[in-house]
Formats: sequence, C-alpha cells, structure tokens
Amino acid sequence: MPDIHDLLWPRHVALIGASADLESLRGRIMHTMAGHPYQGQIYPVTRSHSEVMGRKAYASIQDLPEVPQLAVLIIPAQYIPQELERCGGAGVKAAVVLSSGFAEASGTDGSLLQADIRRIAKRYDMAVIGPNAEGFANIAAALCPTFSPALEPSERPLSPTRPARGQVTVLAQSGGIGFSFFDHGRAKEVAFRYIVTTGNEACLETMDIAEYALDEGKTEALIVLLEDVKNPHTLRRVAEKALRAGVPIITAKIGRSEAGVRAAASHTAALAGSYEAYRAMFDHYGLIEGHDIDVMIDLANAMIAWRGRLPAGRRVAICTASGGGGGWMADACTAAGLEVPILDADTRARIDRHLPAYGTSQNPVDATAQAVHKIGYAGLARLVMDAPGIDGQIVVITARSAKNLERQQTELARLAGEATKPILLWSYTLPAPQSTKILTDAGYPLSTDIRNCARAFAAMADYRALRTAFLKPIEVVSAPPMPARAAARARLAEADGVLCEWEARPLLAAYGIGTLPAARLVDTAAAAAEAAVAINAPVALKIQSPEILHKTEAGGVRLNLASPEQVGAAYAALIAAAQAQAPSARVRGVLVQAMAPPGLEMILGIKRDATFGPLLLVGLGGVNVERFKDVVLAPVPLAADAARGLLQRLKGASLLKAYRGSPARDVDALVDAMVRLAALAHDFADEIAEIDLNPVIVHAEGAGLSVVDALLVKQQA
Amino acid sequence: MPDIHDLLWPRHVALIGASADLESLRGRIMHTMAGHPYQGQIYPVTRSHSEVMGRKAYASIQDLPEVPQLAVLIIPAQYIPQELERCGGAGVKAAVVLSSGFAEASGTDGSLLQADIRRIAKRYDMAVIGPNAEGFANIAAALCPTFSPALEPSERPLSPTRPARGQVTVLAQSGGIGFSFFDHGRAKEVAFRYIVTTGNEACLETMDIAEYALDEGKTEALIVLLEDVKNPHTLRRVAEKALRAGVPIITAKIGRSEAGVRAAASHTAALAGSYEAYRAMFDHYGLIEGHDIDVMIDLANAMIAWRGRLPAGRRVAICTASGGGGGWMADACTAAGLEVPILDADTRARIDRHLPAYGTSQNPVDATAQAVHKIGYAGLARLVMDAPGIDGQIVVITARSAKNLERQQTELARLAGEATKPILLWSYTLPAPQSTKILTDAGYPLSTDIRNCARAFAAMADYRALRTAFLKPIEVVSAPPMPARAAARARLAEADGVLCEWEARPLLAAYGIGTLPAARLVDTAAAAAEAAVAINAPVALKIQSPEILHKTEAGGVRLNLASPEQVGAAYAALIAAAQAQAPSARVRGVLVQAMAPPGLEMILGIKRDATFGPLLLVGLGGVNVERFKDVVLAPVPLAADAARGLLQRLKGASLLKAYRGSPARDVDALVDAMVRLAALAHDFADEIAEIDLNPVIVHAEGAGLSVVDALLVKQQA
Repeated sequence: MPDIHDLLWPRHVALIGASADLESLRGRIMHTMAGHPYQGQIYPVTRSHSEVMGRKAYASIQDLPEVPQLAVLIIPAQYIPQELERCGGAGVKAAVVLSSGFAEASGTDGSLLQADIRRIAKRYDMAVIGPNAEGFANIAAALCPTFSPALEPSERPLSPTRPARGQVTVLAQSGGIGFSFFDHGRAKEVAFRYIVTTGNEACLETMDIAEYALDEGKTEALIVLLEDVKNPHTLRRVAEKALRAGVPIITAKIGRSEAGVRAAASHTAALAGSYEAYRAMFDHYGLIEGHDIDVMIDLANAMIAWRGRLPAGRRVAICTASGGGGGWMADACTAAGLEVPILDADTRARIDRHLPAYGTSQNPVDATAQAVHKIGYAGLARLVMDAPGIDGQIVVITARSAKNLERQQTELARLAGEATKPILLWSYTLPAPQSTKILTDAGYPLSTDIRNCARAFAAMADYRALRTAFLKPIEVVSAPPMPARAAARARLAEADGVLCEWEARPLLAAYGIGTLPAARLVDTAAAAAEAAVAINAPVALKIQSPEILHKTEAGGVRLNLASPEQVGAAYAALIAAAQAQAPSARVRGVLVQAMAPPGLEMILGIKRDATFGPLLLVGLGGVNVERFKDVVLAPVPLAADAARGLLQRLKGASLLKAYRGSPARDVDALVDAMVRLAALAHDFADEIAEIDLNPVIVHAEGAGLSVVDALLVKQQA
Repeated sequence: MPDIHDLLWPRHVALIGASADLESLRGRIMHTMAGHPYQGQIYPVTRSHSEVMGRKAYASIQDLPEVPQLAVLIIPAQYIPQELERCGGAGVKAAVVLSSGFAEASGTDGSLLQADIRRIAKRYDMAVIGPNAEGFANIAAALCPTFSPALEPSERPLSPTRPARGQVTVLAQSGGIGFSFFDHGRAKEVAFRYIVTTGNEACLETMDIAEYALDEGKTEALIVLLEDVKNPHTLRRVAEKALRAGVPIITAKIGRSEAGVRAAASHTAALAGSYEAYRAMFDHYGLIEGHDIDVMIDLANAMIAWRGRLPAGRRVAICTASGGGGGWMADACTAAGLEVPILDADTRARIDRHLPAYGTSQNPVDATAQAVHKIGYAGLARLVMDAPGIDGQIVVITARSAKNLERQQTELARLAGEATKPILLWSYTLPAPQSTKILTDAGYPLSTDIRNCARAFAAMADYRALRTAFLKPIEVVSAPPMPARAAARARLAEADGVLCEWEARPLLAAYGIGTLPAARLVDTAAAAAEAAVAINAPVALKIQSPEILHKTEAGGVRLNLASPEQVGAAYAALIAAAQAQAPSARVRGVLVQAMAPPGLEMILGIKRDATFGPLLLVGLGGVNVERFKDVVLAPVPLAADAARGLLQRLKGASLLKAYRGSPARDVDALVDAMVRLAALAHDFADEIAEIDLNPVIVHAEGAGLSVVDALLVKQQA
C-alpha cells in the first residue's frame, strides 16, 4: 500500500503541464497553488516556457534540483502514462492526475490508459488520485493542487482563526461537489483539514483517504460523497474504524435513483451498487446520510461541537424569545422524531422567575424578547440545562446583529464549556458573518435551516445509541456444528441452479432456521394420500419445480386438505394445472406438507448485492411484500441485537406486538432465525445468490416460527 | 368590514408612544419608520417630549394638524383601549397595536383588554392589527411601522432595483418569523410587496390581509405562516380565490405537533385546529407547504418566475457541467417524485455535437466544463428546451463567480423570456450576491439547497395539475331528493347521541350511500333464527347498543352463520358475552344481517374538526385503520374528481387495482359513496360530530360497495 502521507504532506511538489495562462486550467492551478502560504517548493514542469509566474520552469521531472514527493499532472490523457512512468522512475512517491479522457470517456482508449495508470502506480508504489479528478486541498499545509475556484487565493484565510478545534475532512469523487463543501462550510466557519476529490479512482479511493485521516487522528468528522465503492471491504473496515473512534461519517450516495446511477456511470465510470445495499451499510455502521450540502455541514458541525457529549436520548428542550419560532421548531423536532416534553416543575419555577406574564416555561420555553434581553441566550439556556427530563436543547435565536451577541460571547463560551448536554442553535434571521464567527468560536453549531437543526439533534442521539450498542461485547452466535456445515456444503454443491423448498430444507435444517413442518415429496396421487395419512394433520400440496417459481399463480399450491380423498383429488388437479401453465417445466415432485398453525406472515431472505455481497432481508410477508414493500436489509453476519434493531425499523413493527385480539409474536424465534439465516449466507457468500423464505409464519410468543416456503438460487460462477 | 387600504396605504401616520431612546422598542420603531423614504407625514405622539428625532411631537392624537389614516400604538396594554377610542373618535381609520400583555398573557385581564380592542375597532370600523404584533412593512410605500431589526434603515434598498416583477407578500402572526422571510428573501433578491405580522389577531387575521392583497392584484405569491385560523370560512374563500387567480399560497402551519400546539396556545392565544384538518385544506385548495424559511422562498421564487408557464408534468431534464452535481440532482428529483427520463434521440444528437467524448447527453446531460465554457448555461439549456419528452429543466450551475455569469446575462435573459417550459437553477457553490442578482434579474429562480430546487419543480407541476382540475366546470352531484333529506333530518332529530348501525342505516339509505345488506333487528333467539331464514343467506349477528362501540372486542359480533340453529345458539352466546362485558349497556337489539360478498375492506368516515367543520375520511379499513393509519381527509362537499384524487393519495392506493389473483375494485362505486357521504355531512354540518363506516367492502369492478357497519355520533349542542 502506498503512503498517502506523501500525497497529502509532500515537502515539495512538481506541477507537470504548468502554464501562466490564467484562462486555462493549467494556469489556474499554478495560480492557486502559488497563492497560498505552502512552505515547500512548487516546481513548474513544462517544455514551452523557461519560467512560469516568476518561478523557474523545468523541461522534465528529471531536471528538478531535488525529487518532489508529489507530482500534479495536467497534460493530455495520452501522455499521462509515460509521464507518470518518468515520475516513478525519478522517485516521486505520489501523484494527482487531473486530466480527463480516461474510463469516463466513450470508447475503449481511455479505459486502457486508465489501466496503464493503475499498473505504473503499482509498480512504483505511488499514491495516485485521479484521473479526471479536481485535486485536493490540505488546509493545514496550505497546499492546494486543484483548479477549483473555491480554493482561489483571496484575502480570506483558508481556516478560521480560532483555537484549534475539530476539523472536517471532505472526500468526494466529484470535484465540483467536493469543493462546494469547502465553499459552503467556509461561510459557516468550519475548520477543514483535507478536501480530496478522487475522480475516476484508478488507484486510491475515497475510503483509502478516509482511513488515512482516521489513522492520523486529526479529523473529527468525515464528509464523504459516495458515487461507487470499488472495494466494499475497505468501506466496511473504515466505517467500523470510524465508529469505534467516534468520528462520524456524514455521507450522501449519488446514484440512489436510476437516473442518478446513469449519471454516475457516465461520469466516473462507476458501477454503483444498489442504494438499498448502501442503506443497509449506513444503518449498520452508523453512517449519517444527508441529502444536501448544508445539512451535511450542519451535521458535521453539531457532531464535532458536542463530541463526547452527544445526547443520551431524543428529548429536547426548545428555548426562544420568539413564540412563533419556538413553535415551528417544536414541529420540526417532532417531524425529526424527537420528543419535546413539558419541563419538570422545579426547572419551570426557576425559569418563571425571569419571565413576564406573557412568557411560558413549559417547552418550548418562550422567554419573550424582554427576558432574553435581560438574561441573554446563555442565561436562558443555563436555566434549562440541568432539567432532568431532557437530553439537550435547541436555542432559537436571531443572529442578524453581531453587536448583541458580542456582549454575550464570554458567557456563551463558558456555557458551551460546562454544558453536559448538547445545545444547538437555529437563527431564524440570516446571521451576520461576524455572528457566525462569534457563535462558532464560542463552541456552538449554528443552523439557518430549521429542518437541518432538528435533524442534527436527532442524528446525534441516533449515533450515540448505535455506537453504544456497537461497542458492547458481541454475544457469541452459536455456529452450526461443522458436520452440519459440511453436509450443507455438499448438498449445495450437488444441486442445480435453483433449489425448490424440498431441496432447500436440509440446508435450513442444518442451520436450525425455524421449524420446518413435517413433509414428504411424492410423485403419485396415491403416495400423496398416503403421506397425508402419515402426517396426520391438514396438509398443503406444493409443486416442486425449478421452473415454477410462482407456484400459487401456476395453480401449483393447494392448502388445507383434510382427508386422503381430498389430497388425491387435489394432487391430480394440481398436476393438470401445472402442466397447462408450464408444459416444459421439470417437475421434481409434489411436496405434501403439514399446514403450519396460523400466525403473522413475514418474509426472510438473502439478496446478494453486486457490491456488498449477501444482505439479510426481513419484512412483512405474503402479498404484503410487494404491496407495502416494508422490508429492511442488513449486512451478514448479524448479531441478535442488530437483528432486533432491524425489526424496529419496519413500518409494520407494531404487528409483532400484542394488539386487541392477536397475541404478541415470538420475536425471539424470529431473531434467532434471522441470525442463523445470516450465518448461512455468510458461510456461503460466494455460492448463494438468493434465498427466499416467504412466508415464514411467526407464532405467538414462545411458539416459534414455521418456514412454510423456501427457494434458494445459487450464484452463477 | 374595515378598509385595509387605510392600514397599508395611509397618507399620514401617527406613532403613539414615540420615543427618541434607541435602546427601547419605541425609539427603534420611530427610527425605522423615519429612516425609509415614506412620502407621508409621521407624527410622533407623546406627552413626555415636545420633539422626537427632530419631529414636532404632539400630546394627543387630537392635537395633530391633520387626521392620519393610521395610528401605530406602542404604549402599556392598559392604556390601549382609551387611546384607541380616542383615535376612533378623531377619525383614524386603522391601527397597529404593538403592545404585549393581552390574551397571550396569563390571567384574564389581558383577554378583557383584547375584547375592548375588538369592540372599539368594530364601533369605529377601524382596520386593526395586533395586539402583540410586530407591525408591518409596505415595501412599495417604504412605510415600515415595525421595530423588526430586519427593517432597520441601511444602505441596501428595500426592494431590488430591477424592472417590476412578481412581488411576494408575507403574512404571519409571529413577528420574528414573519420578518425573517424578508431577511432571507432580500439576500435572494426577492421583491416583496407587504410583510404583515398580526400577533394576537383581535380583529384582522392574516387571511383578511391575504384577501386584500389578492383583490389588489399586485401580489404574485403569498407566503403565509399559519398559527391558528379563527375564521375558517375566510381561509377557504381566500384559498379558492387565490387558486382561481393562480397566486400560489406557500404556507407552513405552526402547531403540527402537540408541542407546537402548546407553543401556539401560549404564544398568541391560538386555538389550533388539528393538523390533519389543515392538511386536508391545503391539499384541497392547492396551498403549498414548506417546512423551512428558505424552501418557502425558493417555492415562491420559482412559482413567480414561471407563472403561466408551469410544468405540464413531472418529467425533468437536468443539465450540468458537474457530473457529480447532475447525479445528485437526479437523485433529489426522484426523491421529490419527479421523473428524469432519457432524452429523445434528436435532442441528444443536437447536444452531442457540442460534447467531448467524456460528456453525456442522456439525462442528466453532463456537458462537462469544457462544453459549458464554450456554449454557456443558456446555450446548453436551449439545446434541451424543446425536447418532446420533458416538462422543464433544472440547470446545475456554479454561481460562485459573477464574472462568468455576467458574460452570459443577455443570452440567459433572452432564454428566460422565450422558454415555454420552466428552467430552475441550483448552484452547488455559494453564489456571490452579484450572481444572485444577475440570475434573478434574468428571470430565474436560484436555489442553493438541492432538495428545495427539486421540491420547487415538483410543487409547480402539482399546482398546475390541481389548479387545472379545480378550474374545470364542476360536475353536478345529484343531491338526494328533498323528501329523503327531510326524512333524514327528522330521524336525526329524534335520535339519541349515538346512532348504532340499525339507526344510522335509514340516513345512509336516504343518501344512497353504498349497498346496505338485508338486515332485521331482533330481540330473541327465535326471532333471530326466523330473520336468518327470511334473509336466506349466511348472516352476521351484531349487538346494537350506543354504549358498545367496539362490538367485536365485547363479543358482540358473530359472523358467517349458516343454519337457523347456529343463529339461535350464537344469539344466546352473544347476549351473554355482551352482558358480561358491559352489564349496564342499553341494548337496542341484535342486528341479523346478510353477510356481504368478500372484497377490499376500507373505511369511510366523517370527522368534525373544531376549526374546519366536517371532513370526509377514507382509508384502508378493518384492522388496517389503526395499524397502518393510511387515511386521507378532505373538506366537504366533495366533487367526484376530488374524491378520485383523494384515493390516489392513499399509500395503499394500489390495493384498488387488479393484482395477481385479486380483481380491480369498484372505484366508481367507492367514489360515489364518498361524494354522497360528503353531501350528507355537508347538509348536517352542525348536527353530526362523527360517522364511521368501517368497514365498507369494495367489491370487484361493477359489483358495488357494501356498508357492513355504521356508527353515527351526533354533535353536542
């Protein structure tokens, strides 16, 4: 693995393709790099000029007076391989390839050139980003090898001038979007560490840079825009590392929609995994999704400001001098899934002493402009801070005038230092730049969007809860005994592409997944009747054919048959219907199976995602699967706690609880089946494409779960 | 009705309670009013000074050299009535009461004072806003009787300096929030007409001002923050008037949540109706909800810019030089319910001529920075404009640098003038103020939030569709014949508070609501058996008692009884169970009713909202009502088209369509029942509190709908 330190912290840099023409990207990047106080040398390399913007230029990387760690290349695509080769030969350890015309271009030439880059980088163990990238900015080093207009030199410093505080690293394939976070964030007084845009990712991926930033330990929040993930294992490893370190990853996935995938495919030659699979990863590893630039920045700001003091729950107090603003915020909080409880009597009494008759302390606390004028926002928040029934506060302010806030700055900073529960700010007026600075320096995250502020509080609470659960010692999941696994493996190996229920049952049995109702495979009406007698209960008949996947629609299922005569007649009718519907289907026989007791129909399944491999699926079963699409996914293997958490995310989660006539369902049995099915999928990650247990019938508490249909599709080699 | 023109357009104004102390609200309002180029006289009225800020002050309104049309009062609450009385006596036609301490304060004194204001205003036919208001701003007249910091005099003009374009009027009870729209909107180059904050609304409500603005015809979009609506009839009239005029009302309701209601109640003494009822009104009259200041401004901007040219559908093209930005926007559009279809071959060929190999024309159109540099955003959008398969475009831009946009200004303005389909802009970088001005002057709405931009497009399409349907000639709903209505009225009058199914059926029959299965009321087992024989079909038995509302839970329902013996036995068991469960319930008898054929169980109902009166409810029925809460509401009466639209808003709308084994449902019968039930509710708006038809069974197409349970609760006088 190449050393990313050489990429981000080079002592010296060469710019290959440098130009003085400010109308060209080559000139703009030179201008940008030279315009910031980077301490190393910047060597222009070009054959056309002997000097670029006052610096001596060199015809080749080999002519430089010393070997730079980093080369930035902005020359036509076809010359990139030979130049990169020359860099490698000269001992350059890292490169940024800005040029376009690689895998993102139509035709195959570009892809071949991109493969060359990968090969050369590998040979010389170089840390390479690009091609088709917009470069990066190392804010701490004032190194900005990028032509992004957001980094053009200006009077404004790259970083806020305040005591070192949590820094944000931004990672994106897209340069335009990546640097837009810097642009928006700067206005919000965000301290950035790195902004790295990786383009086509021939070599390094965003997640590689993320891992470097985590290992370095100076980044307190990561903003990562995902287009495609080429190494899902890196994503999982990095996500887990970040979660352990308590460094939140704020993310957005481009390609959630079909049209978005289309854009990603043409844009950076990305092979996007399904969004549902990403969602499963995000939910499992606590990545926080934001669907706009500002909300992602607000999320990062809040998480950094209150790192180590995230809310222990979802109960929020709202303080304000604007009754309308407080009420609106209460609505926004409720919409974000927060609670806004009435404050306890002691706290209210403490507040009431300061309020005029037309204020209220219940929550939202409308202190009125009069009281806030007297005690300040900090004074108000301090009165509420220790209320026992809340997990944090949102203070609704007007940050239009900095003068007013200047007076309160010391007290606000003291409160931010002492508070044990987070305090977020929403300004309903547009903050003056100086107001943003005062409040950020004092230690507060400031939102101007009411939804973003409420969302940030909710995300903080969710993140803390998920991280706490994640860091708990993992319970031991009883793996099936080796012989059972070996038997399952043998059976899977000998089976064809599609395993019907009869063929899939032994695998399920080996892993102890649910109860499998008594059953026999038969191939005559007489044998069916005989089987029914032996089973000694009402039975179902089900055709078993790898070509008839929708058995019910094909007339291949008969339910609730009580007498041998009924069974015999049903057998004949079923075979006739199936032959009429699917004359060429290979029929393995008919399954005669005991009817399971009634219960809640659910679906359990495994879907193999192209990017992330097998994912466990659980949801409402039967017809409801397609009607309500109420299913959730998680990566495998899966701990019982995670399985339980997954169930809570179903919209129909309440169906598992007791309700009027119907009993509470056996959630333990369902969780057990989920964990075991996930273990099966994990053990055969490369062999199984899909498992459908639909429905499984979840019985009343203590009565277990019956698997009454099953289908397994093998992965094509 | 007083004349609001006197309030908003006074020739002269008196400020009662004027002061020169800039630390006080009294001083700030004087400073603000005097600091803008209002053409009329501003007369300070105060007993403490002979001069305020260089203007001669008067001890009383009666001492002024001329009668002002408007008095602005900022004196302690207890002096307001006498002063208002004095104003009325002097011939003042309008007043703004800024003082606090009225109905919003604890205790009853404030409420009495507020009643005084109402009485005096009525006596003198004065147009009064407040008390507890923050005043208003008439931007066109530069009249700003408010102490809002957002209106403090500054070098920045109140209104953008461009040719007269669509103006926005903002209405809110809350002053802080109301004026924050001006603050945010000014940065977005919005041209405002009025900002009016109404506080406690002792006299005039936001909707009264809205009506004035609509009648005046100079407002092209209304932003209305609703806390409570005291006159729902005004809301409905204004909403309809606005929809007819094509002036969108962008709204947010404070008090969507319990905590929000709490805030509203304490803040402005509001009695908030239920949010579900507001939602029903919004959906019915095309009010557009936004849940943040900026999104509401973006919605208003988009609607104004493309007034008369709103998108005919939801198909959007996305043009960009940033592949990542285009993909992200495609996701945002899809999330907002828009379609992003691949463009037609002709359009693509036209575009492709301008693109390098690494661009794409499919949609999103990623033209690359290179092509956009050459042909400009306008050139790109023009290539896409006439594509047959789209209803408008979103152009993803970077507005960071104004220089680049300045060059394109003429071409952009020409395109905005000529385009027949709307073009919205999203800048992923923060726009320079000059960029915002250039683009707004050219005629484009510019968003900086990707979600807001996509939402604005979707809202435009929805608004056009809803308005088109609304303006269609209304189909005649056959009212039930007068005798039937009279019979229904008589029956309702003689009934007790709660009507069981047996008592409610004649009312439903009178209005022809669905099919009522054959039934008889009996009071012995023998009579029950006899009724079953007469009905000659499997029957249900249902206890009829106004005290047993949940019959099933009380053991008061038996289904699918085939033989007279079964019926007799079931009768006895049912009576025993009911007596055990509810020993004191008055039992009217047992209903023996033919079982209805199977079908989709739905609920139809009427709920009387405290604010808006009767609302029709429709949703998934049976147990699903409480489990999935998939219900929607609409005001009554209801046209068939609106009823049909209502059904489409159900999450489970697809259940009405054919699906695998199950047939398409009789939507026509369902719509007919909805229209008739709404007519019944409308006719008896003051007499009926609630009707529950749960379930109604919707049969296959052409087979109608059976009402198999009914409950009617009369409104308490």
